[in-house]
Amino acid sequence: MWTASRHKAGRFPMVAYRSFSTSVQKDWSASLPSNVRIVEVGPRDGLQNEKNFVPTRDKIKLIDKLTNTGLETVEVTSFISPKWVPQLADAKEVFTSIQKKPGVRYPVLVPNLKGLEAALEAGAKEIAIFAAASETFSKKNLNCSIEESLDRFRQVTEEAKKHQVSVRGYVSCVAGCPFEGSIDAEQVVRVTCGLLEMGCYEVSLGDTIGIGTPGDFHRILQALRPHVSMNALAVHCHDTRGTALANILTALQYQVSVVDASVAGLGGCPFAPGATGNVATEDVIYMLRGMGIDVGPVDLSALIAVGQETCQLLGKNNNSKVAVASQASRVRRANL
Amino acid sequence: MWTASRHKAGRFPMVAYRSFSTSVQKDWSASLPSNVRIVEVGPRDGLQNEKNFVPTRDKIKLIDKLTNTGLETVEVTSFISPKWVPQLADAKEVFTSIQKKPGVRYPVLVPNLKGLEAALEAGAKEIAIFAAASETFSKKNLNCSIEESLDRFRQVTEEAKKHQVSVRGYVSCVAGCPFEGSIDAEQVVRVTCGLLEMGCYEVSLGDTIGIGTPGDFHRILQALRPHVSMNALAVHCHDTRGTALANILTALQYQVSVVDASVAGLGGCPFAPGATGNVATEDVIYMLRGMGIDVGPVDLSALIAVGQETCQLLGKNNNSKVAVASQASRVRRANL
Repeated sequence: MWTASRHKAGRFPMVAYRSFSTSVQKDWSASLPSNVRIVEVGPRDGLQNEKNFVPTRDKIKLIDKLTNTGLETVEVTSFISPKWVPQLADAKEVFTSIQKKPGVRYPVLVPNLKGLEAALEAGAKEIAIFAAASETFSKKNLNCSIEESLDRFRQVTEEAKKHQVSVRGYVSCVAGCPFEGSIDAEQVVRVTCGLLEMGCYEVSLGDTIGIGTPGDFHRILQALRPHVSMNALAVHCHDTRGTALANILTALQYQVSVVDASVAGLGGCPFAPGATGNVATEDVIYMLRGMGIDVGPVDLSALIAVGQETCQLLGKNNNSKVAVASQASRVRRANL
Repeated sequence: MWTASRHKAGRFPMVAYRSFSTSVQKDWSASLPSNVRIVEVGPRDGLQNEKNFVPTRDKIKLIDKLTNTGLETVEVTSFISPKWVPQLADAKEVFTSIQKKPGVRYPVLVPNLKGLEAALEAGAKEIAIFAAASETFSKKNLNCSIEESLDRFRQVTEEAKKHQVSVRGYVSCVAGCPFEGSIDAEQVVRVTCGLLEMGCYEVSLGDTIGIGTPGDFHRILQALRPHVSMNALAVHCHDTRGTALANILTALQYQVSVVDASVAGLGGCPFAPGATGNVATEDVIYMLRGMGIDVGPVDLSALIAVGQETCQLLGKNNNSKVAVASQASRVRRANL
């Protein structure tokens, strides 16, 4: 055994450790989920902030191409007032025109009963509702307090249940808020439990502004663990500060096994224009497969191609590092 | 407790887990090092592949600015033949002209006895030597087999010891090789032990082509643990596929407490031109501080400014996501 004391030059200070246990290392892989469900949010979360309207036929093509790669859950659109999100004004046409593959889930975002009605008319079988862990963010984004939003969504969920429609919940700003700064984990617990209590089958914890580190996810999941089964949680990480994959790794170590991601990292951070947004699906799949985790039958090369085509269509940089590395290698091979 | 069975819609398959232990979560933060030493490699690893020669005075300014931010270890240059690395032909002038701050370490790369001689003449107190975990990479990069390189470096280390010069070792391609593909962890163990045995105080495990995932670092550190103290290891992650911070997190969970990084993520991946290279120091510091880990007195805002100035000077994109998010927020504030 080569120890630091034998090799470390005396003039360098020894590193002090917190109390040490070998159990983390022993259980490192044993504690990870053996499979992870990927929720592709590119067509909705990725596109919603695009300034130029993406033609409806291109949205439909994108969604069909995504499911053709083998992705098993694709969030399609949002049945929200075009006044708020003009980009998704074609929600009905998009939802009714896409291929519906057996075994693939096509959730849609719904802000209220009116949105639910439109989603039901279009034939949606799964909806997603969204609350915030920050009072100020809730007021700015939903125009009401957290409590009021939960009341509103309780009605939506009750109505959805009557139609055998599954409901997924989002909690935004779990690791921090652009207006309030840090957010107490107890607030995340309160909103998460509220959403599960009303009947959401799963709640996705959103680091909306990509400010979180593994320290935040540790803190949040520690606080949630006494109240919520990890089976009922997902993580929705933005990569604004590069920490998304490390945060996802932390969540996996807490046995969270559902990860939201966006092809090519589509979607910026509205509070830091120019900065990257959603974590790229390609990068999540690359990391998870490298860890021996089953993410389903998705063809990564095909997904990289779909991301690249979409970025070309939108005139955007590809924010998937795996895609960029793959493209770069291809260019190099072509030049040899 | 809200469980999945209560909330998960029946038609969705339950996620299967590997054998579960709560110990990972319990020990999550307890097993992390309380402080981490950052080794800034931007001036050497970051610049060495720059095609246009960076003026010597700019290199000197960069290094002085970096240590002014509070960074405590900055790898300065490489005493290597200008035939191999023309960018660093000014090694002597750079090394002798930079400020030497008390308590700050200024290692330099040295490929052989001739390089050591030049480094000693310039007054270096610490050198770094580099071997590969891949035979083919060793032959292409060092023009000799791994065994021959270790023999060569044994002479260098013996000579360095006579001058009370500390020696740090690098092992490249620990997670994979651009020529051989996957690399056996036992190979990494063999080379790491060889370097420690000859007297390196620390060995930095390099994912040279940024191909590794936490699964690879788990595999490598598991293999190393019976042979090497984690106190004698560092990690040197490239972010080519976005996994660097997650890989660093994994290494921290194995108690590795020294992390190499490059300001603004300077340095590409020579095997995937256009792809990002070294993990950005700014991003490493942001993540580690967010996890409550002491990384020394470095001023992150000042470091972001140095990275931004350097990118402007080199005409390159800033590969630190923390820096880009910070710049974007600044632009937004200025536009309000």
